[in-house]
Amino acid sequence: MINVAIYGYGNLGRGVEDAIARSGDMRLVAVFTRRDPAGLTLATEGAKAVHADEILQWKDKVDVLFLCGGSATDLPTQTPELAAHFNVVDSYDNHSRIPQHYAAVDAAASAAGTTALISCGWDPGMFSLNRLYAGSILPDGSAYTFWGKGVSQGHSDAIRRIEGVVDARQYTVPVAEAMDRVRSGETPEFTTREKHRRECFVVAVDGADEEKIRHEIVTMPGYFADYDTTVTFITLEEMRRFHSRLPHGGSVIYTGCTGKGDANRQVIEYSLKLDSNPEFTGSVLVCFGRAVHRMAQRGQRGCKTVFDVAPIDLSPLDRDEILAHLL
Amino acid sequence: MINVAIYGYGNLGRGVEDAIARSGDMRLVAVFTRRDPAGLTLATEGAKAVHADEILQWKDKVDVLFLCGGSATDLPTQTPELAAHFNVVDSYDNHSRIPQHYAAVDAAASAAGTTALISCGWDPGMFSLNRLYAGSILPDGSAYTFWGKGVSQGHSDAIRRIEGVVDARQYTVPVAEAMDRVRSGETPEFTTREKHRRECFVVAVDGADEEKIRHEIVTMPGYFADYDTTVTFITLEEMRRFHSRLPHGGSVIYTGCTGKGDANRQVIEYSLKLDSNPEFTGSVLVCFGRAVHRMAQRGQRGCKTVFDVAPIDLSPLDRDEILAHLL
Repeated sequence: MINVAIYGYGNLGRGVEDAIARSGDMRLVAVFTRRDPAGLTLATEGAKAVHADEILQWKDKVDVLFLCGGSATDLPTQTPELAAHFNVVDSYDNHSRIPQHYAAVDAAASAAGTTALISCGWDPGMFSLNRLYAGSILPDGSAYTFWGKGVSQGHSDAIRRIEGVVDARQYTVPVAEAMDRVRSGETPEFTTREKHRRECFVVAVDGADEEKIRHEIVTMPGYFADYDTTVTFITLEEMRRFHSRLPHGGSVIYTGCTGKGDANRQVIEYSLKLDSNPEFTGSVLVCFGRAVHRMAQRGQRGCKTVFDVAPIDLSPLDRDEILAHLL
Repeated sequence: MINVAIYGYGNLGRGVEDAIARSGDMRLVAVFTRRDPAGLTLATEGAKAVHADEILQWKDKVDVLFLCGGSATDLPTQTPELAAHFNVVDSYDNHSRIPQHYAAVDAAASAAGTTALISCGWDPGMFSLNRLYAGSILPDGSAYTFWGKGVSQGHSDAIRRIEGVVDARQYTVPVAEAMDRVRSGETPEFTTREKHRRECFVVAVDGADEEKIRHEIVTMPGYFADYDTTVTFITLEEMRRFHSRLPHGGSVIYTGCTGKGDANRQVIEYSLKLDSNPEFTGSVLVCFGRAVHRMAQRGQRGCKTVFDVAPIDLSPLDRDEILAHLL
């Protein structure tokens, strides 16, 4: 049995908990929270809700710790700090700052002799793996990543900060024509607008100036200004009924040529259609947590990524069974 | 530079040669053949065509040897024999006999201190990896593999052995309705007939009894009897014009549930659309050959599979570049 724990009990933490319950070789021993642990109702019998301040008392009772905080402010400090004491897995997803995060976590984990895996999930994570596999098979090819249709929490939050907005849900939608062009083997250079569009559903306060809110959304730099964006005002009741789930997904499409004169086109596509983004992300974290445990036991220390993990280490099945049935 | 060689110069051998030429860190030094090497025209300048009998003279000049023979009679003996002298990669694809092949190759490679990777390509190979990744992420899910539309060499050969047949090409075609059901999250139990159908194009000798040939094809046990099979008679000229390429492809579709009461469905799909099956397979072999070289240098000896290879070992790019741009 691998004894595991969760740090942070939001949507992702709950997704990790669900995935642990489906893993026969893992036992959830504790969930750490910065809130009052008495207020937490865990889904797992036998697991304890514990205040984050007490985490170091659990050092010898936890084989792998899943860090389920946010990438903006939590993980940049939490992952290095906790990697100094535990084997950890995080889902750090700020692509442009991954090298810095890697360096900080590697320093902490290497000094402490722990194993830390960062930027796990589906993007970064499974999509990254597919970009690497495809690019290694067809080194001269082109990779395209499309996201959605799915809820972007960051964009939903950005809308919620606008005055007069009660609640908001933003869907990122890939442009079907762009995907079809890539699938057919074309290698176009798309503008941001040509690849994705954004659909916003907004609940406004009574008497709000809807046109003003709409204008503020569609012109928001960094978030919406570079996209074709639609804004639909709905009621709180409609928000609860039709937009309570967190679906997501997307595709990595890779095309490359082989043969004399590049005569033959080869298309590789990896796609996800997810009813629940945090539960799928949690499931990815958990199987990589199994690999982290095995790598730690073998003395493979320091910071790792999904690229460093031999796939067989992810599986609970034994080697003979895998060779006989999955190869 | 990694010095590599090819053993067997058919369609797959030529595909491997093309992929090596696209790899800046590899140099093809020799192609071994059991035919007269003087009759071989290689596409690679500087590489030598050499008779297979002389291969042991190349022991110190080849870092990795790509075995490009067939799975039926060549590889079961060639891979263990050559793994006793070289680091090797093969594409052994007889799924039901992989454990025996693995054992034979592992014994030879372990005794000799070489590194051997078997059953590489796309199925077994990339499809196997996707079955393992998906099954590790969602352990309670269901995997479906569909092949095609593409040319099956084995089925084409089976038709060619029928009396009165001059040439034949058989396409394996996945049943679209079956794929749609799986993609929608259903987990049906399909019969063989419900998943794939078979399209045959046949050139018969003048005056042949076409109805007799058709009957012999569609009732052939093991190959066609369990499928809906269509047979179309064409001319030799039509065969050359419309059926000279070797396209293939397929999809691994995996569905699983997460969340309380299995409320959320998650669908993972990996698919390939290949203009040239042997050239794509060759490209996969070549990037795994790079990993075999690195694993051998690190002292990771014995028989390996695609499951044992950390993805980062497949890439010619350096670690910092991979972390910054692919994760």
